[in-house]
Amino acid sequence: MSSIYEMNRGQLEAEMKDLLARYNDVKAQKLSLDMTRGKPCTEQLDLGAEMLSCLKPDDVYAEDGSDCRNYGLPFGIPEARRFFAQMIGTNENHVIIGNNSSLTVMFDTLMRALVFGELGSTEPWSHVANRKWLCPVPGYDRHFLVTQTLGFELIAVPLNEDGPDMDMVEKLCAEDASIKGMWCMPLYSNPDGYIYSPEVCERLASMKTAAHDFRIYWDNAYVVHHLYEDNRGTLPDILSLCEKAGNPNRVYEFASTSKITYSGSGISCIAANPENIAHIRKFVTVQSIGPDKVNELRHVRYIPDPAALDQVMKRQAEVIRPKFEVTLDILEKEFEGTGIAHWNKPLGGYFISLFVYPGTARKVVALAKEAGVALTPAGATYPYAKDPRDENIRIAPTYPSINDVKKAILVLCVCAKLAAAEKRLEEM
Amino acid sequence: MSSIYEMNRGQLEAEMKDLLARYNDVKAQKLSLDMTRGKPCTEQLDLGAEMLSCLKPDDVYAEDGSDCRNYGLPFGIPEARRFFAQMIGTNENHVIIGNNSSLTVMFDTLMRALVFGELGSTEPWSHVANRKWLCPVPGYDRHFLVTQTLGFELIAVPLNEDGPDMDMVEKLCAEDASIKGMWCMPLYSNPDGYIYSPEVCERLASMKTAAHDFRIYWDNAYVVHHLYEDNRGTLPDILSLCEKAGNPNRVYEFASTSKITYSGSGISCIAANPENIAHIRKFVTVQSIGPDKVNELRHVRYIPDPAALDQVMKRQAEVIRPKFEVTLDILEKEFEGTGIAHWNKPLGGYFISLFVYPGTARKVVALAKEAGVALTPAGATYPYAKDPRDENIRIAPTYPSINDVKKAILVLCVCAKLAAAEKRLEEM
Repeated sequence: MSSIYEMNRGQLEAEMKDLLARYNDVKAQKLSLDMTRGKPCTEQLDLGAEMLSCLKPDDVYAEDGSDCRNYGLPFGIPEARRFFAQMIGTNENHVIIGNNSSLTVMFDTLMRALVFGELGSTEPWSHVANRKWLCPVPGYDRHFLVTQTLGFELIAVPLNEDGPDMDMVEKLCAEDASIKGMWCMPLYSNPDGYIYSPEVCERLASMKTAAHDFRIYWDNAYVVHHLYEDNRGTLPDILSLCEKAGNPNRVYEFASTSKITYSGSGISCIAANPENIAHIRKFVTVQSIGPDKVNELRHVRYIPDPAALDQVMKRQAEVIRPKFEVTLDILEKEFEGTGIAHWNKPLGGYFISLFVYPGTARKVVALAKEAGVALTPAGATYPYAKDPRDENIRIAPTYPSINDVKKAILVLCVCAKLAAAEKRLEEM
Repeated sequence: MSSIYEMNRGQLEAEMKDLLARYNDVKAQKLSLDMTRGKPCTEQLDLGAEMLSCLKPDDVYAEDGSDCRNYGLPFGIPEARRFFAQMIGTNENHVIIGNNSSLTVMFDTLMRALVFGELGSTEPWSHVANRKWLCPVPGYDRHFLVTQTLGFELIAVPLNEDGPDMDMVEKLCAEDASIKGMWCMPLYSNPDGYIYSPEVCERLASMKTAAHDFRIYWDNAYVVHHLYEDNRGTLPDILSLCEKAGNPNRVYEFASTSKITYSGSGISCIAANPENIAHIRKFVTVQSIGPDKVNELRHVRYIPDPAALDQVMKRQAEVIRPKFEVTLDILEKEFEGTGIAHWNKPLGGYFISLFVYPGTARKVVALAKEAGVALTPAGATYPYAKDPRDENIRIAPTYPSINDVKKAILVLCVCAKLAAAEKRLEEM
């Protein structure tokens, strides 16, 4: 297929005919493939098999002697705090352990801000009727849903290859004190796989904000989730940057083992500077008896040090890298020269973000569904599920088998080209 | 020692001399015993040893086929929901699973009410500036701390042997719309071990409340924690009672396995009627990827049915019953005829509640501390840690060895008698 921008009506109609034939062939196969969520596949989960039985009745004690089965250590066992500190590049005193859902840690942190306010707040955030939150787009639907549910107006800001559009972010934050915070997935962003540049990180740490209690939610979900051992994305330590910039309380950082061990049964953490940590501790000790220490111990037995973590992530990458590569190969082959779609080749993370012909993303997802391929709903990567250009589709290649990935991506490509040709014809 | 109320000054002075001698003997032993918290002992935790390794790589699937290691089932696996439903006597559709801390489930439920309100609320509870919460006393300090931290004024109501003083509860609730709810530990109350009578339960379910969004927090923490197999406390199903009384949304029920399996790594639940469950689900699905299903599976493998639960709780009771009995024996022997102290003989739960001579509880705890025995701080069982009569001391006999329990309770008795005699002399 040649460039869609150079075809005339007749060429487009001929192309559509071919594409419809391909589409009908695919439909006849009665596929049933699910590419909706960024879930690990069974082979990835099986890597952690020793987690199920690595603890023994005489090995239930943390390094400080605490019995992990009993009450105590409300902020986690020392070695789990060190595990995360080493992973995200901070000090273990900056870390508090959470249970199996870092999303919960984020949600709870926002709930505390709503009910009690943050350090620097003049009132609890629930009293700020027109509170707003910055959302780099495309982004993670569950982030957006959290702040939407908690009553924030979501403000989309474009995410570029080196991070959020900082000119816009700085302008908005400097002018509007009701902008209370911002989502960031700085390494291998969901869905584009972008990596924030050191310059963007520094600008985030040092920018002026009208709100004295502005918070960056730094979701470092894919901090060690590299696809290529020899080509790893890196990030500066945002906590240090904020400290240096004179905004020590600005950032909460989050991480988890959801895509290191078990996505339903991992451990998570929040990291922050000492003042924020003291603030969190006051409430966490009232809210909970503490996180599940037995599961923490399981994790540090399975992954005792950074070298072991490297090995685990290498094995994870070996399982999912071929799925990314086959996806990228098919996209390359199918879209080459057509001008219909573009995408990033991520170095890590869990997604590929496909931009199809503007105004067709919904149609593409609907066509794929009709052909038995379930994709993440179009628009999901934008606040209120509204993609203003209706062009972004999140591809989640990890869960299906490699053969299913191939089949699904081929279907996706056919649907995208079909929808593009149709749209182009309408526009003529 | 004869009745303290019948002794004259001379007799009291002689008694004090003896008691001081005993006290100094004890101090010379340089004890270091901790009776502060209701923690299971190592022997109890060891009962669940198979929990550490009962799952195998091919046994990670819930009965509906879900891989427990992966995302999914945000309300828990079906068999874990059934486990709790059978335990508390309700339907599994009324149950949502939580992680290792039922306190967190309670705290989060209150946070939701503060930020979003309850069904029947005219506004979020955070907007109710003078919000109040009923606290049967003596009660559980961590309950009180939750509602205190969340900005409720705590209203103490006396807890009688058959439950809260219902005349007072009914009057307060009927008159004051800012009373939003009430803590209840209906079976083997912390610390007294009292059991709410069916009549009290019915009055709680059917009473008129000025607040249309009044909620009972029914913490059924000790629902299967019987000390005597043949003398078990029972409760009506409060959810059914509220339904029948025309107040179906009135109650949230909580339970956990913290004192069944591991106190730091159990599973928990919230149970409610269908309308409240639908309300909770809306938020829980935003807050979390769901509870730790692998830990749920571990639990139902270890305790597959009610008969297995009976066996586990029988073994638990065998470990702790002797500690309760030796405590009660010593109290009986030391205080017999003195009129100084009274207490309940619980049929289950985790505590014995000792009422010492009025105005001496703080003194007793301080004396015990000086003699090397750490007790729960006096007053802890009351809102704001203020016991108006300064008389209640919570005894937590489960954690120390039986010999340490003996030593500690003897010290406690000596201290209580010494403080009583001293106080009595002051009052003469």
